[in-house]
Amino acid sequence: MGYRLGGRYVEGMDHLGSGLSFAEQINVAVRSARVFSELSPQESGLLRGFLEVFRVRASEPFIFEGDEGSFMALVLTGQVSVYKQFDSATPKLVASVGAGKTLGEMSMVDGEPRFATCVAAEDTTFAVLDRKGFREIIDKQPVLASKILLHLVALLNQRLRQTSAKLLEVMEGSEKAVKK
Amino acid sequence: MGYRLGGRYVEGMDHLGSGLSFAEQINVAVRSARVFSELSPQESGLLRGFLEVFRVRASEPFIFEGDEGSFMALVLTGQVSVYKQFDSATPKLVASVGAGKTLGEMSMVDGEPRFATCVAAEDTTFAVLDRKGFREIIDKQPVLASKILLHLVALLNQRLRQTSAKLLEVMEGSEKAVKK
Repeated sequence: MGYRLGGRYVEGMDHLGSGLSFAEQINVAVRSARVFSELSPQESGLLRGFLEVFRVRASEPFIFEGDEGSFMALVLTGQVSVYKQFDSATPKLVASVGAGKTLGEMSMVDGEPRFATCVAAEDTTFAVLDRKGFREIIDKQPVLASKILLHLVALLNQRLRQTSAKLLEVMEGSEKAVKK
Repeated sequence: MGYRLGGRYVEGMDHLGSGLSFAEQINVAVRSARVFSELSPQESGLLRGFLEVFRVRASEPFIFEGDEGSFMALVLTGQVSVYKQFDSATPKLVASVGAGKTLGEMSMVDGEPRFATCVAAEDTTFAVLDRKGFREIIDKQPVLASKILLHLVALLNQRLRQTSAKLLEVMEGSEKAVKK
């Protein structure tokens, strides 16, 4: 056991092999993952060729806040806890993510530091698409790439709108607090 | 004069014609627009076929906060003021945008309400890519589409990170204010 993924050696992680060997599990997860929605069965098959599958044991972190990101993960089985460090306090649980959900899409695309740390809450398997693989999809399967990118844009749009709305709300709240 | 764009009739607006007739101006703007960066001259030529060019006279609004968005605009000449409505106060100037900058990319992709109102600060020409045109690019020119989408993702990522950082900052600030 033990594997180096995205520049980090993770003790409790195994590389299970190419996505091509996990057709059924990946198909099921792809169907419920937003960034992969509207893929035809044939496109889902193409995508599998660019994925690698890993298993990580319970309580093992495998994405680390602040790291330079180079891959996204599609959870196939299990559960992942997402922790974020605020100030210098203990990291806070900000999300819990199960099968058919994706993690770290943003960092895959732009290599910016990871926004949060992901820890396997139980034994978990996930499929990885790294930046190199994604670039290959763009070059070799541009129709598939543009479908994925379109959903990434929609996902980011939604998050940006939610975050902007939240920001306005908090700012208005704090302005009122100051006025009092 | 007067033209209906994105479901709104704008009095002081003219349709100048297809992007194909504005090669030089569009090429210059495309080269400095982030979402169109890394396009080859050939790809820039393909893109022009999906653009329509408009002129809008000074002090005329042409994108309206709250409207369902269906197009993005690439400013070719002139200057655009971007106003956002906070609470019920007078709209606030949040940005000033000149040639080679884009407006409204987000709403083009997802049709969500416009985030702000755009007003020509002086006589302004701009090229429009609407959702229908963008869908055509995805279908007919997937390599071009994936290049544009990749930059849209990067742009959104950056905005989301900035907005999230700002939100954390304001939240921490207001927490401290409450503790006092």
